[in-house]
Amino acid sequence: MSYNFIENGTITSPKGFTAGAICGSIKEENTTKKDIMMVACEKVCSAAAVYTKNLVKSDAITVTQEHLKDGKAQAIVANSGNANACNADGYKVASDICRLCASVLGIKTEDVIVASTGVIGVPLPLMPFEKNLFLLKKGMSKENGTDCAEAIMTTDTVKKEMAVEVELGGTTVTIGGIAKGSGMIHINMGTMLSFVTTDAAISSEMLKEALKEAVEDSFNMVSVDGDTSTNDTLAIMASGLAGNKEITTKDQDYKIFTQALTDGLKSLAKKLAADGEGATKLLICSVQGAKTKKDARNIAKTVISSSLVKTAMFGADANWGRILCAIGYSGMNVDVKKVNVSFESAAGEINVCQNGAGIGFDEEMAKNILLADTVTIKIGLGDGKEEAEAYGCDLTYDYVKINGDYRT
Amino acid sequence: MSYNFIENGTITSPKGFTAGAICGSIKEENTTKKDIMMVACEKVCSAAAVYTKNLVKSDAITVTQEHLKDGKAQAIVANSGNANACNADGYKVASDICRLCASVLGIKTEDVIVASTGVIGVPLPLMPFEKNLFLLKKGMSKENGTDCAEAIMTTDTVKKEMAVEVELGGTTVTIGGIAKGSGMIHINMGTMLSFVTTDAAISSEMLKEALKEAVEDSFNMVSVDGDTSTNDTLAIMASGLAGNKEITTKDQDYKIFTQALTDGLKSLAKKLAADGEGATKLLICSVQGAKTKKDARNIAKTVISSSLVKTAMFGADANWGRILCAIGYSGMNVDVKKVNVSFESAAGEINVCQNGAGIGFDEEMAKNILLADTVTIKIGLGDGKEEAEAYGCDLTYDYVKINGDYRT
Repeated sequence: MSYNFIENGTITSPKGFTAGAICGSIKEENTTKKDIMMVACEKVCSAAAVYTKNLVKSDAITVTQEHLKDGKAQAIVANSGNANACNADGYKVASDICRLCASVLGIKTEDVIVASTGVIGVPLPLMPFEKNLFLLKKGMSKENGTDCAEAIMTTDTVKKEMAVEVELGGTTVTIGGIAKGSGMIHINMGTMLSFVTTDAAISSEMLKEALKEAVEDSFNMVSVDGDTSTNDTLAIMASGLAGNKEITTKDQDYKIFTQALTDGLKSLAKKLAADGEGATKLLICSVQGAKTKKDARNIAKTVISSSLVKTAMFGADANWGRILCAIGYSGMNVDVKKVNVSFESAAGEINVCQNGAGIGFDEEMAKNILLADTVTIKIGLGDGKEEAEAYGCDLTYDYVKINGDYRT
Repeated sequence: MSYNFIENGTITSPKGFTAGAICGSIKEENTTKKDIMMVACEKVCSAAAVYTKNLVKSDAITVTQEHLKDGKAQAIVANSGNANACNADGYKVASDICRLCASVLGIKTEDVIVASTGVIGVPLPLMPFEKNLFLLKKGMSKENGTDCAEAIMTTDTVKKEMAVEVELGGTTVTIGGIAKGSGMIHINMGTMLSFVTTDAAISSEMLKEALKEAVEDSFNMVSVDGDTSTNDTLAIMASGLAGNKEITTKDQDYKIFTQALTDGLKSLAKKLAADGEGATKLLICSVQGAKTKKDARNIAKTVISSSLVKTAMFGADANWGRILCAIGYSGMNVDVKKVNVSFESAAGEINVCQNGAGIGFDEEMAKNILLADTVTIKIGLGDGKEEAEAYGCDLTYDYVKINGDYRT
């Protein structure tokens, strides 16, 4: 199996998709910041999505769920600046946005996916969509995919996008995607919004399965602050225009496609974590030697979510006791006396704990390793062969600052 | 039922107990800070304890569990500055500390409760105990209870102690206690250490039951940072010297005693939360109108644990959307359309969300209310009659600062 990431790849890299974004002044008045985006395909696509598990959810999700019941979609419309959640008229507004989008694109309302992100509990006006969708449509092109990544940003400091190419039976298939989110990010659907396109030919059923699998090792392994948003949506559309033999069962092509999708989503997940609110570094927790996959995943997620581990990493403090402590309350069955811990970064690797107890180590060297942009916390459980990786970031002064006055 | 808190009450307020503390230079070299404490009773007491649920735990806990198997104890010895956790020789050290304590007090080693708090993974030397326990014993008195509260402090900024009096069948019974802990505090055993004494006559079995009940609504409802310590221990000793009719069944006296114990522990729990690492204010989340007690407790705990709610409270930002969001991911079954939210403090009360949607409110007034030292987030579920309260604090720059370089 061979696949590679495309430089400057984005949501319009796969065949058949155009995109664009515009300033609707939802995010702020008197600005030119883009806050409405559309992605559309020249034909109706197989489509699937996964959503927040929060009971309190945006009406955009309810509408999208209805529209995706038939496993088909042709466009995505999304806005930032307002989550359209906890509003009395939210369902009507989300439906009307789909109707407007369908009308300017000349497609069916039921083939539109809608998503929103931003502040909760403030009514989302329809006006910005009425005023701007037609103009937005006129500017849609192959080249403007990256504008969409920009338009869905809220407290994000960088755009998150990717595209990956993979061979399916001699045919090159492309997967592209964008994501946003840097706060309210936790282990179930650790994202606010992510939209993915592909030109692979794949049935709706198989696309749904592939997405579910790919999410397990990517977005479901990210934690920024332990909060699960009301709006998390990850939607995928497959145009089939690559011309590969359609995937309709879990055959070899399905496996290759799912692996490429997983790695594509992982790259977005890491970008989310690295851009976590206030983060100064990307943290990766790599667990090896677990008895079961569940053990490995839960331990990695618990360690990456610990406020005390996150603050220690901010301070470049090799306080491995906090890592053992987090392993201990993960709820998994671990033999503490077999646990090894080391830290790794571009500056090197250092062992700090062997068989559940501290070992002498060079504090200066540890500090240097922990000062890097990307730090991997490696945990060996010595209990089996399963492994997992979770992605997170340090907890910093700026996280507090950003969230201490988000609305004001 | 009538009971009242005793001004300046502490662990030596109940009849039969003396206490003292000393500087053993465990916390720091070249200082006079007290870091070893002992509490002892003139007779063997009924005793019980609850512990951390962390799989990685201090050997002090293992030793205490063994000593409390018979439901009897006569003394507590504890230190700060070193958790005696994740050390190869931890069990031996904890046992030796008990032996030393028993020897200077002239009691049985099996009647000693031992506890430690501080940094994890650094061997705890026996020397400070060998050098100081005898001197410590000589200084023990009725008056020195408050020194114990001081000796167990780590990042705590204030001592936590209380005593409460209650009538049992015409006899006055006293409960006194101390606690420490301001980080690594989460909803299961939300404390590092707490020691409680009483002169009530009560059997070991009933004392254990009363403690279990009292913890549910007090320490199990506190969250500072979501981390569960390796060392959490809450131990209670009952001397029986008040002379009440011994409690041996769940009769009226048991109920009165348990209620007084609950309220005593609640007062310590609130002090823990208010002194949470870096906290500028005590947050209380009061949930009413829940269908079940479990719903009420879990929702209160989830809201008080949310990093986004905690940072909003630090910024005195009435961002109720984050509260609804947290209710939504609590895992409880809630009808969002019935949820009301208001904020209350000494400065007044303001409704911000009715029937799951925002209502217009005076932002200036809300800010004033949220600027208080103690803020109550009131949540009405409109779904039943059960209620619960959880205790926490805001998430601030100083939390990050304290934990960014705890060891260095």
